[in-house]
Amino acid sequence: MPHPPKSLDYFRDSYDIRIAHLEEERAAGKKIVGTFCLYVPDEIILAAGADRVVLCGGSSDTIPAAERSLPRNICPLIKSSFGAVVDACCRGSLACPHVGLVDVVVAEATCDGKKKMYEILPAYLSTYVLDLPQKPGSPEALAYFTSELRKFGSFMEGLTGRIITDDALRREIRSANETRRLLHRLFELRMRDPPPIRGSEVLRVMGKQFFLSPKQFREGITRLCEELEQVTPTLRKGPRIMISGCPMASGNTKVPDIIEGKGGVIVVEESCTGTRSFWDLADEEGDPWKTIAERYLKIPCACMTPNDERIARIAGLAKRYQVNGVVYYSLQFCHAYNIERLRVQQSLKEEGIPMLAIESEYGDSDREQIGVRVEAFMEMIS
Amino acid sequence: MPHPPKSLDYFRDSYDIRIAHLEEERAAGKKIVGTFCLYVPDEIILAAGADRVVLCGGSSDTIPAAERSLPRNICPLIKSSFGAVVDACCRGSLACPHVGLVDVVVAEATCDGKKKMYEILPAYLSTYVLDLPQKPGSPEALAYFTSELRKFGSFMEGLTGRIITDDALRREIRSANETRRLLHRLFELRMRDPPPIRGSEVLRVMGKQFFLSPKQFREGITRLCEELEQVTPTLRKGPRIMISGCPMASGNTKVPDIIEGKGGVIVVEESCTGTRSFWDLADEEGDPWKTIAERYLKIPCACMTPNDERIARIAGLAKRYQVNGVVYYSLQFCHAYNIERLRVQQSLKEEGIPMLAIESEYGDSDREQIGVRVEAFMEMIS
Repeated sequence: MPHPPKSLDYFRDSYDIRIAHLEEERAAGKKIVGTFCLYVPDEIILAAGADRVVLCGGSSDTIPAAERSLPRNICPLIKSSFGAVVDACCRGSLACPHVGLVDVVVAEATCDGKKKMYEILPAYLSTYVLDLPQKPGSPEALAYFTSELRKFGSFMEGLTGRIITDDALRREIRSANETRRLLHRLFELRMRDPPPIRGSEVLRVMGKQFFLSPKQFREGITRLCEELEQVTPTLRKGPRIMISGCPMASGNTKVPDIIEGKGGVIVVEESCTGTRSFWDLADEEGDPWKTIAERYLKIPCACMTPNDERIARIAGLAKRYQVNGVVYYSLQFCHAYNIERLRVQQSLKEEGIPMLAIESEYGDSDREQIGVRVEAFMEMIS
Repeated sequence: MPHPPKSLDYFRDSYDIRIAHLEEERAAGKKIVGTFCLYVPDEIILAAGADRVVLCGGSSDTIPAAERSLPRNICPLIKSSFGAVVDACCRGSLACPHVGLVDVVVAEATCDGKKKMYEILPAYLSTYVLDLPQKPGSPEALAYFTSELRKFGSFMEGLTGRIITDDALRREIRSANETRRLLHRLFELRMRDPPPIRGSEVLRVMGKQFFLSPKQFREGITRLCEELEQVTPTLRKGPRIMISGCPMASGNTKVPDIIEGKGGVIVVEESCTGTRSFWDLADEEGDPWKTIAERYLKIPCACMTPNDERIARIAGLAKRYQVNGVVYYSLQFCHAYNIERLRVQQSLKEEGIPMLAIESEYGDSDREQIGVRVEAFMEMIS
């Protein structure tokens, strides 16, 4: 098989097409919602007749603009996201090109840093914040989140002037499930030894999931799956690695690049830019508000407590993908993932799976040190 | 007036009396609940026939024990609290003497650091976690928190074997309100110029609020108010300072000591160890579960979003207490208070009230630097 897979070109070319499409939609009066996080259900936005686009948060360039308002010692993803908005709204040159396209940001009460950053965002962009229960397991938490989703639905109806019918919601649930099934199909292929695609390539594709339209994204994933299913992989073998932890927003590929540079073969990512985004499907029967709430509350983000589902899922994925080691990735100062590391480590130790913990910011100053540690880890698990 | 006020002796002497009392209660089969935070309603614990005692979190000595499990770059209050439990349960010599007395810790989903620390606490102590909505303003959030309180009530009934009647709850609401009114009376006295008591003295008294029994605490506060109301203060005048921000758990008096050492007169603390603990009273009529939920959701902790109530309250207190400046105190790596600082600063700037921001850990390494900054601030506002 030629490498990289030819169908990846689709995703490269899709960027400009999508931006042009969003501009056309806006000119035609369609409302565009900006999002930052998996917990905001696309289904509701799309069922209200709006479009949505993920906002940028992976670049270190926008951090200085954020640090004029935010403390330095918070996670780089939050600073980068906020800085991208500040920069775009102040006609800066580092701008996230999506910011100018959105009518409103729909944010969510996840971690402390994001939750509080969203309070100063309205100075730049109209912002709606969805509350989340923090102990997601109970019927009461489900009822609360369902009520939050309905309130958000009313907000969207006010924005677009279109009533969200149960039929429209069910159609969007089926559409989102179709995307999720396709991503399961892609990730299944990575169970091969060697896998037919690099982890860094998958990460770049996953970054398009909430940027492209669902149809456009599925077209690309379908082509990619078809190509990968039909050819014999030529990638070399190496220690099979799972990355688990914080999201790696578009532009932040430092750690996967280092791992692959040292001969590691990344076969699965337990993260918001990996399995957490598509693993669970929503029930297509029943009250759609409730089944959406159920599905989203299953996302095992470390902002939830207790997060036993994530601990179990990591061990399960490690076995399923026959990994030789796990790289636990956390963004600097991300308390939730940093503290949860202990429980993940204990669980993997019981399973006899080695783990390397990397806490990193967006800059390059720690690149060499991470390289040395990754290299030592590879030697240990090879 | 002799200084310090003679009635402060009551609080010094009360410590051993209370520990002996808790030991007696335990021997007689009474259940003791350990708490860490204002959001856990004493009313429910006491109405179930249990007693409660706040756990320690103000000492730097227990931090190394915590750092064996927790990341270093989280707030010292969380590390100190966890370390105190680890140390006590491992028969260490730094032990929080309260830990051995409690049957269960009742914790709360407030900030990321505490929420995730509570997940590893059960390895040492039985732990119950109360969920909190993060956007407290809506009827749905109130309904969710009320359901969480009822669930907690059932847990307490299971622990003590005593049914929580509405009458018992109402009695405890009245008792808690009585304490709150007394604290308002104490804080009113601090509006005098000069105030009749030092801020560092009030802080030490406030540290006893959730340690002593309500009756014992009220006895001390009543004596203190009576003494302060009857005598002419002899404290010197100086710049009137409000401290606003993170709690200062018992043992953590570094910043107030520095401020007073530099001639500042602390007249009010907008914090969990200050006004946040008693400012709002619960409604004594109506469904007691709901009025308790309403009262506790009014606590303007920075873990809530948006926290407009706190911003308004700080400006209101600054005027009411005629402060010359505000010292914004945050614990190192406390994202919520650190980020909220910007909004507080903007609001105080509009009111023309100077603010000095201090982010500090528990050690002494920053004592000199803080001293220099506080001194410069005093000169500026004098």
